[in-house]
Amino acid sequence: VHVSDVSLTSLELGHFSHFMQKEIHEQPKALSDTIDQVIEGGLDPSLFGENALQLLQDIEGVQILACGTSYYAGMVGKYWLESIAGIPTNVEIASEYRYRDVAANTNYLILTLSQSGETLDTMEALKYAISLGHEATLSICNVRESALPRASRMVFYTRAGAEIGVASTKAFTTQLVALFTLCLTLAKLRGRLDAKQESEYLDALRHLPGSVQHALNLEPQIKAWAERFADKSHALFLGRGLHYPIALEGALKLKEISYIHAEAYPAGELKHGPLALVDAEMPVVVIAPNDSLLEKVKSNMQEVRARGGELFVFADLDSHFGEQEGVHVIRTPRHAGVLSPVVHAIPVQLLAYHTALMRGTDVDKPRNLAKSVTVE
Amino acid sequence: VHVSDVSLTSLELGHFSHFMQKEIHEQPKALSDTIDQVIEGGLDPSLFGENALQLLQDIEGVQILACGTSYYAGMVGKYWLESIAGIPTNVEIASEYRYRDVAANTNYLILTLSQSGETLDTMEALKYAISLGHEATLSICNVRESALPRASRMVFYTRAGAEIGVASTKAFTTQLVALFTLCLTLAKLRGRLDAKQESEYLDALRHLPGSVQHALNLEPQIKAWAERFADKSHALFLGRGLHYPIALEGALKLKEISYIHAEAYPAGELKHGPLALVDAEMPVVVIAPNDSLLEKVKSNMQEVRARGGELFVFADLDSHFGEQEGVHVIRTPRHAGVLSPVVHAIPVQLLAYHTALMRGTDVDKPRNLAKSVTVE
Repeated sequence: VHVSDVSLTSLELGHFSHFMQKEIHEQPKALSDTIDQVIEGGLDPSLFGENALQLLQDIEGVQILACGTSYYAGMVGKYWLESIAGIPTNVEIASEYRYRDVAANTNYLILTLSQSGETLDTMEALKYAISLGHEATLSICNVRESALPRASRMVFYTRAGAEIGVASTKAFTTQLVALFTLCLTLAKLRGRLDAKQESEYLDALRHLPGSVQHALNLEPQIKAWAERFADKSHALFLGRGLHYPIALEGALKLKEISYIHAEAYPAGELKHGPLALVDAEMPVVVIAPNDSLLEKVKSNMQEVRARGGELFVFADLDSHFGEQEGVHVIRTPRHAGVLSPVVHAIPVQLLAYHTALMRGTDVDKPRNLAKSVTVE
Repeated sequence: VHVSDVSLTSLELGHFSHFMQKEIHEQPKALSDTIDQVIEGGLDPSLFGENALQLLQDIEGVQILACGTSYYAGMVGKYWLESIAGIPTNVEIASEYRYRDVAANTNYLILTLSQSGETLDTMEALKYAISLGHEATLSICNVRESALPRASRMVFYTRAGAEIGVASTKAFTTQLVALFTLCLTLAKLRGRLDAKQESEYLDALRHLPGSVQHALNLEPQIKAWAERFADKSHALFLGRGLHYPIALEGALKLKEISYIHAEAYPAGELKHGPLALVDAEMPVVVIAPNDSLLEKVKSNMQEVRARGGELFVFADLDSHFGEQEGVHVIRTPRHAGVLSPVVHAIPVQLLAYHTALMRGTDVDKPRNLAKSVTVE
């Protein structure tokens, strides 16, 4: 396995306690490095390889295939691709796609996401898609010359640097930037992005590392929340739209490293089942930059307040939502617009990290898990 | 609200302890009643209404919109529609679809699923789809003349009879039959079903109520398993392909009525996170008619056996998988082919019911939940 752009020193921990903590804090730089190639190259299909213009210009949709955290990144990608580029997008777990009879529109781009580029199920799903007749294949990954980019006709490398912690952090947020870049490139190619919008979106990308740094500065507040999570066995994460995948990612991080049974739901599904679970033993985390979502979740939660159900809300600075009994709020200092999921990934990573630390688990090497899943 | 084909006597419990138990046991009849209209009418578009031939013949795909249990039924529908009818199908949670910018192919059929026909989020999602320009709209529901069929150009009524228990059972399995009927009708319309296949699939439908009755006869064995679940706080449900939605449904049922935190994963995702959670306190339920899936899950489980992780497997009679230490197996007596998800819905319903009973919860009216979710 080749590891790109990595010096030996980056493999050292420095003043951090774990690789995961170090990698969480490296995100402003990882994002800057990944964004730089976009700013330098402009929103040109050549960002994705030599033949990308020809391969991308006639696609009728995007089929994203991935596993684990990369699958959640793909879910954010779907929202962006449909709303900004106006292109129908499906996201499917690679191990599901590869074993079923797919009714394929072979004019869809096949987009695979994998930090290592070696995830076996994703590789097999790609081979299956190619066997169905898909011509346009693009891999977004972090490790150069790995299996997925070698098997794909286009590639975009995230510049996260080596990721050592089993629980993915900077690979996830840089994948989001790669997906956003693809979305803007396709939007431009399809005439859905005028010069003003292009410049605004690129500005938003330029400001992203700063917004992420502001979110990292919330670490002391999140550490205080972690103390309240450390003795719990359960947690429920809620989000909606662009932030539902961030709720999923937050729950997965907490599961992986703290062994707390955290589960995510799209907020609208709360009343269709999981609300029955909520009591004082199950804190509810809400990723809710949007006040209107919060109002709805709050009304759902009224009936469980009596049993002590507590809400932990990650909101924006411009949210009008205030602390009250049983409702705790941490605000990210800047509103990041459509890039808000990238910024909100940070506090849920930090919450998982500090909760695991207090529970004394092996943060960088959680039990039963491997960094790169190269078996079924 | 009109309730169709229901006499007052059916609202009585008879010798059953709860409506949920009664409704679980009514499934052979509910399925027969629903299947009868298909056998009588034949696989003709008119099953879905007067203008159905014209509306269905040119669709390029199917967009399913639903909430909760109906959403899981839709997921099974996707597998059938893609593999048997060869028609691209997407399934989305109604509360997510209605609040995002959808890149719609308006030549897709909009298919809504709801027991009551009054689920607010599903209704709003349908209105949104119509506003985007979708012409072909079909509602599958159980209550005649309810809001969704009134707002749709086509309708298929399941004949489950009144469902009183909050946790849906017979509405779910009859929805599956409705989806399978739609799948066969579209396959025939698109020239993908020859006379022999049609006759085989209709035979499979005819045999389904009998297979479901055989699965109901497993109740004593499942009750014995429930004793092992009653003192647990967690459970993990695994499935793959057609049976992944059944794993989701099994986890949801257990959540809703026993308040055990059960979560489902597609089996291939086990190594991407949830495996870290598994220990003696988290039983793992596997819906695995297919031996090859089971072999893979078993290999994943080897490493957690040391911590006492136990597997509870629902397998087919022709599965070669045997009991061994830490692996318990219940076999459904008949292999139901592509209709296997309908048969495997029964044991997970019974497991939830008996576990809840032992925990002493209010099975028919779980805390915090309403039968028909007519608010956000």
